[in-house]
Amino acid sequence: MILNQSELFAKTTREAPSGEEAVNAILLERGGFMAKNSAGIYTFLPLGFRVMQKIAQIIREEMNAIAGQEMFMPALVDKRYWQKTGRWDLPVGFEAVGKGETTAGFVLGWSHEDLLTDVALKFLNSYKDLPKAVYQIQTKFRNEPRAKSGLLRGREFMMKDLYSFHTSEEDLMKYYNEVAKAYKKIFERCGVKVVYTLAAGGDFTHSFTHEFQAISEIGEDTIFLCDKCEYAENKEISKLTEGDKCEKCGGKITVQKGIEVGNIFPLGTRYSEAVGLKFTNEKGERVPVVMGSYGIGLSRLMATIVEVSHDDKGIIWPRSVAPFDVHVIKIQNSKSKNQNDNQKIDKLVHDIVGQLSQKSLDVLVDDRDASAGEKFADRDLLGIPVSVIVSEKGLTDDSVEMFKRADMQAERVSVGDIGKHAANI
Amino acid sequence: MILNQSELFAKTTREAPSGEEAVNAILLERGGFMAKNSAGIYTFLPLGFRVMQKIAQIIREEMNAIAGQEMFMPALVDKRYWQKTGRWDLPVGFEAVGKGETTAGFVLGWSHEDLLTDVALKFLNSYKDLPKAVYQIQTKFRNEPRAKSGLLRGREFMMKDLYSFHTSEEDLMKYYNEVAKAYKKIFERCGVKVVYTLAAGGDFTHSFTHEFQAISEIGEDTIFLCDKCEYAENKEISKLTEGDKCEKCGGKITVQKGIEVGNIFPLGTRYSEAVGLKFTNEKGERVPVVMGSYGIGLSRLMATIVEVSHDDKGIIWPRSVAPFDVHVIKIQNSKSKNQNDNQKIDKLVHDIVGQLSQKSLDVLVDDRDASAGEKFADRDLLGIPVSVIVSEKGLTDDSVEMFKRADMQAERVSVGDIGKHAANI
Repeated sequence: MILNQSELFAKTTREAPSGEEAVNAILLERGGFMAKNSAGIYTFLPLGFRVMQKIAQIIREEMNAIAGQEMFMPALVDKRYWQKTGRWDLPVGFEAVGKGETTAGFVLGWSHEDLLTDVALKFLNSYKDLPKAVYQIQTKFRNEPRAKSGLLRGREFMMKDLYSFHTSEEDLMKYYNEVAKAYKKIFERCGVKVVYTLAAGGDFTHSFTHEFQAISEIGEDTIFLCDKCEYAENKEISKLTEGDKCEKCGGKITVQKGIEVGNIFPLGTRYSEAVGLKFTNEKGERVPVVMGSYGIGLSRLMATIVEVSHDDKGIIWPRSVAPFDVHVIKIQNSKSKNQNDNQKIDKLVHDIVGQLSQKSLDVLVDDRDASAGEKFADRDLLGIPVSVIVSEKGLTDDSVEMFKRADMQAERVSVGDIGKHAANI
Repeated sequence: MILNQSELFAKTTREAPSGEEAVNAILLERGGFMAKNSAGIYTFLPLGFRVMQKIAQIIREEMNAIAGQEMFMPALVDKRYWQKTGRWDLPVGFEAVGKGETTAGFVLGWSHEDLLTDVALKFLNSYKDLPKAVYQIQTKFRNEPRAKSGLLRGREFMMKDLYSFHTSEEDLMKYYNEVAKAYKKIFERCGVKVVYTLAAGGDFTHSFTHEFQAISEIGEDTIFLCDKCEYAENKEISKLTEGDKCEKCGGKITVQKGIEVGNIFPLGTRYSEAVGLKFTNEKGERVPVVMGSYGIGLSRLMATIVEVSHDDKGIIWPRSVAPFDVHVIKIQNSKSKNQNDNQKIDKLVHDIVGQLSQKSLDVLVDDRDASAGEKFADRDLLGIPVSVIVSEKGLTDDSVEMFKRADMQAERVSVGDIGKHAANI
C-alpha cells in the first residue's frame, strides 16, 4: 500500500496531549495513531489501526499453527450465563441496559468462558470430539477505576482470547505448554522480550497460572526474577525476597516491574462443572470437560511495544508491526525557488515508490508542504523503521539518503539500488 | 487453508433450531455457521466467521479503492457526544453502566457520527485538509424490540460505517455517487442483486437518502419499483402506487418487498454544526464541514445472501464469500470391509488436497466416520460451491466426481485433471 501523508486523516502534533502521563499514550496520540475519547477509551486512527492489524495477523498465524479456530462471540453476554458460573456480581464489568428499560440484561464481555462453555454444550459430547481450541480477537470491556496508563489499562480494549477443551488434565497441560511456546513466539515477533512468570488465578481459576511479563518501569506488576535462569514469580503469590538464591540454578533473585502482556489459565473443570459440559469417555462414563483459557491484550501489547521501544524523539517500531515498511520523505524548496529541481525530485520519488511497491512494501510518502525540520521531527515521531530522504542533494548523482530509525544512522545509496536495499531491510 | 471436518469445533444438526422462523437463522444454525446466545445475539462459529471475513475483505477492497481509510472507534460512546448532537435520548440503543454504579455514562455505539465529528475537530481545519473519508468494520448495538429474523435484525451486529468530509455540497454529492457505485460493486461481488432506492433519512438527516434493497419476500421494507428502468422509492416517502406509470421511462410501477443491505446519507452540516466542526475556506471564512455517512450491515448481508441463495437442502454460497472453495468428500466403507481400497482412497484424497492446495484454494475435507448419505446431506447444507467426491467407484480409473452445488450437477473427472478443473471453478 502506498499512501501520501497529506491524505492521512490524522495529523501529528508537537504538544503532548493534556491529561496523559504514560509514554505510550503521549507518543501514540502525538503521532496520530490514536485519539482519546474518554478515560481509558480510544479511537484507533488509520496509522494505529494498521499497527493493530499487523499484531492481529501475527497472533492469528501462531494461533492457527496450534490448531486454534477463529470465531467471534458477542459483547452482550446475557445475565444467565454469568449467573450459572457465579460471575454476575463481580465488579469488573459494565452492565448493558436497553434505553428506557430499568433492568440490566447483559454484562459486556470482559472474558468469555461463561458463554463459550454453554455454546460448547451443543458440539462437545464424546471423547472423539476432543481436544478442540477456538479463539477470537475482539473488543473487551472492564470498568477500570483508574484508567490512566493509556492503552496499558483501558476500559475498552482489544483482546485475543483462546479457549481449549480436553479429555484430561494431562492433555490440557500438554496444550498449555504448546500455547506458552506460541505466546513466546508472538511476543518475540512483536519485538517484546517477556518473562514467563508463575502467578495467581484471579477470577478464573484457583490453581496457579502463568503470565508473560515484559520488564518495564511502567509495569504495574512486581515480579521476582532469577538473574541466571529467568525463573520468575509474581509477587502476589511469591514467598521469594530480593537477594534470595534461586532454587533451580543458584542464581540471584532480583525485583523487577513488569507489564502483563499475556496470561494462560489451566481452568480445569471450574466452568464445565458449573455449566454441565460433560463428555462420554472411552469407558462410557460422563465426566466434565477439562478446559484452559489464554489471553493476549492486543492494545496493551501495542502500548508495551511503545513503552519498551522509543526514545526522546518518538516511537521505534519493530519492522513486524510498523504501520508502513518505508517512509519516503520528499524535501523540496518552496515553489518560488528552483522549479526544475523540484520536478526532478518528484520524478525520483516516483521511481523509488515504484521500486518499493514492486517489492510489495507498504510505503508512506511525506508529500506535505512542510519544512525539512518538521518532516524529520515527524519521521522520528512516527518511527517507521526505514526512511528514504529525497532532496536536491542527490540530483547530481541520483542518490538518496537511507535512514534507519533504530540507530539513527544514515547512508547515501544510489536510486537504482533502492529495490535491492529495501529487500534487505 | 486445509481443514478436516472432524476437527471443526461446530457440527451440523438435522433439526431446525427452536424459536427461529427466518431461513437464514435456520440454515446458518443447522450448518454450524453460528449459534444463538440471546434474542438477536449470535456467536459466529468458525465457518460463519470465515464467511464474515470474506465479506469484510470485499468491502475493505472497495472502500480502499475510493480512498477510504480504515480505523476503529470505541463501542462505549460517552454521553456528552450524544448530547451535543441531540441523540442521547433516542430509544434505539443500550446504555452502559459500570457495575455498582447507578448512572449510565455511555450509549453503546449504534452509529458514530457524534463521536467521529468530535475526533475530526483535531484534524480538519482548512480546505486543504478536505476531502477525507474514514471507515470502520465493527460490532454495533441496537435494542431491537422484535429481534426475530436471525441476522437480518440483530441486537448486536457487524457493520461497516464510512464517513466523508467535504468543503461543499457539490463535492459531497460527487463522493456520494462514487460510494453508490462502490456499494453496487460490493453487493454484486457478494452475489446479491440490489435496487438503488430513494428513502427517508431517519435519525441521521432530514434530506432524502438512498437504500440498497435486495428484493426478497422476507424483507421488511416495501418498495415501489419500475419494471423497466429499475427506478425505486421506499414506500415510507413515496407518493407512487402500484400500476402507476414511471415518470422516467414510462414503465410500470410494481410493489416489492426488500431487505435494506446498505444505506447512504448526505448528512450535510447536521453534525458539523452541532459539534462545531468548521474549516477555513479559500476566502478565509470559517464554515461548517459538509458530511456524508454510509453503512453496510455485514451480518445482515450474510443473512441476505442465504435468503436469496438457498434451496430446500441448504445454502448455496457464491464462490466469493464461501467459507471454503472446495469440499472434498471421502466416502469409505466401514473398516471391516476392504482395507486395501480404503488406503487407496486415502491416497487419492491426499493427492487431490495437495493439488488444490497448490492452487491456493481453501479446502474442507470431510474425513468423518459417517455414511455417504449423511455426508451428502451436510455437503448440500453447507453449500460450498464445488465438491470432489472420492470413493471406491474411481479406484479402477483414478477418477472422482466433481459436483456443483448451484445446479446440483455432477461429472466424473480424472484425478490428474483436478488442478486444472479447480482453476476454472
